[in-house]
Amino acid sequence: MPKVTDEHRANRRLEILAAARTCVGRQGFHKTTMADVISQSGLSAGAVYGYFKSKDDIVAAIADEVLSSVDELFQGILASEAPLSPAAALRATLDHILEIAARPGGDMTRVAIQAWAEALHNDAIMATASSKYRMLRGHFAAVARRGQADGTIDREADPEQVAQVLFGMIPGFLLQRLLLGDVTPASYSAGLAALLSAPNARS
Amino acid sequence: MPKVTDEHRANRRLEILAAARTCVGRQGFHKTTMADVISQSGLSAGAVYGYFKSKDDIVAAIADEVLSSVDELFQGILASEAPLSPAAALRATLDHILEIAARPGGDMTRVAIQAWAEALHNDAIMATASSKYRMLRGHFAAVARRGQADGTIDREADPEQVAQVLFGMIPGFLLQRLLLGDVTPASYSAGLAALLSAPNARS
Repeated sequence: MPKVTDEHRANRRLEILAAARTCVGRQGFHKTTMADVISQSGLSAGAVYGYFKSKDDIVAAIADEVLSSVDELFQGILASEAPLSPAAALRATLDHILEIAARPGGDMTRVAIQAWAEALHNDAIMATASSKYRMLRGHFAAVARRGQADGTIDREADPEQVAQVLFGMIPGFLLQRLLLGDVTPASYSAGLAALLSAPNARS
Repeated sequence: MPKVTDEHRANRRLEILAAARTCVGRQGFHKTTMADVISQSGLSAGAVYGYFKSKDDIVAAIADEVLSSVDELFQGILASEAPLSPAAALRATLDHILEIAARPGGDMTRVAIQAWAEALHNDAIMATASSKYRMLRGHFAAVARRGQADGTIDREADPEQVAQVLFGMIPGFLLQRLLLGDVTPASYSAGLAALLSAPNARS
């Protein structure tokens, strides 16, 4: 029954990732050991090591999991036929990230912030993070080009520069949410929409 | 000669902070010990502990140092009589941060990213970071109110929401600079200016 076995393996893998998110979110990347993840998962050490050889492997898998679901989100955003606005794309992305963060097994945005710090001193995490973030930012460049076609973004603009700023709003949202606790996708995208509706904004 | 002594103490303190920035930037917050900072500073243990009792104290002092110079920057920005635009305020802030980052003794933006991660598991760092960031964001709220008075920001907008987004662009800049290496204050503020000059941006 190879199909059942594959499904079983996939579920086990998700359980281990949820356990890892819980540990990293609670105690940080450095203090989390494979033994913590094993204990949190309730599986045997052999079972866990059968899926992931190291913490770096686990962090890479968490990043993959989150960002492949974000890829799907952008496919949906770009497939819509309505004129695409930057504030609406930001709002949809933030809503999606918070929906993922609320899933059982630990807020992955806490893991993301750990990964940023870890990337500065760990080549494997740096390689994962930079390639994933480049891909995610590429989605915002696609949003910018679509906005230019739809007339919601200046046609003279460099879409890569617009993408830097749109993508760059996300870490600031996550950080304010975890450190200051007073931002929501609604307040943040309202702030952007207010800026974009400025009467005389070009400078 | 109390004046000379004060100046001497202040310089010593700056030397220790520079040594700490170097250590944390190189090896991360967790792997940095007080012994590393002492060794990097070239001072005696007694001398260093005379200024700082712990790593947490040092991180708080680095945050103070950086953010008090940012306070001065905003006083300058808000004192100017020219109409204040959000993109110009962002550009000035980023230029200022990179100027501080280029000072001898280690890039403090690397320390900032370590502090974000550390804040999630360390109450002292959390308290420092959240109060400093709240203050810094307050400067952007002042920029927003000034922009509303000058007609560069929609008068109907909530300045606190605008501040969330403007402040929120900074962590994303720092992260892209360190992880992707391809953003500059010029490219980033050009991206924002392009968004703000959108023909039909309200959504």
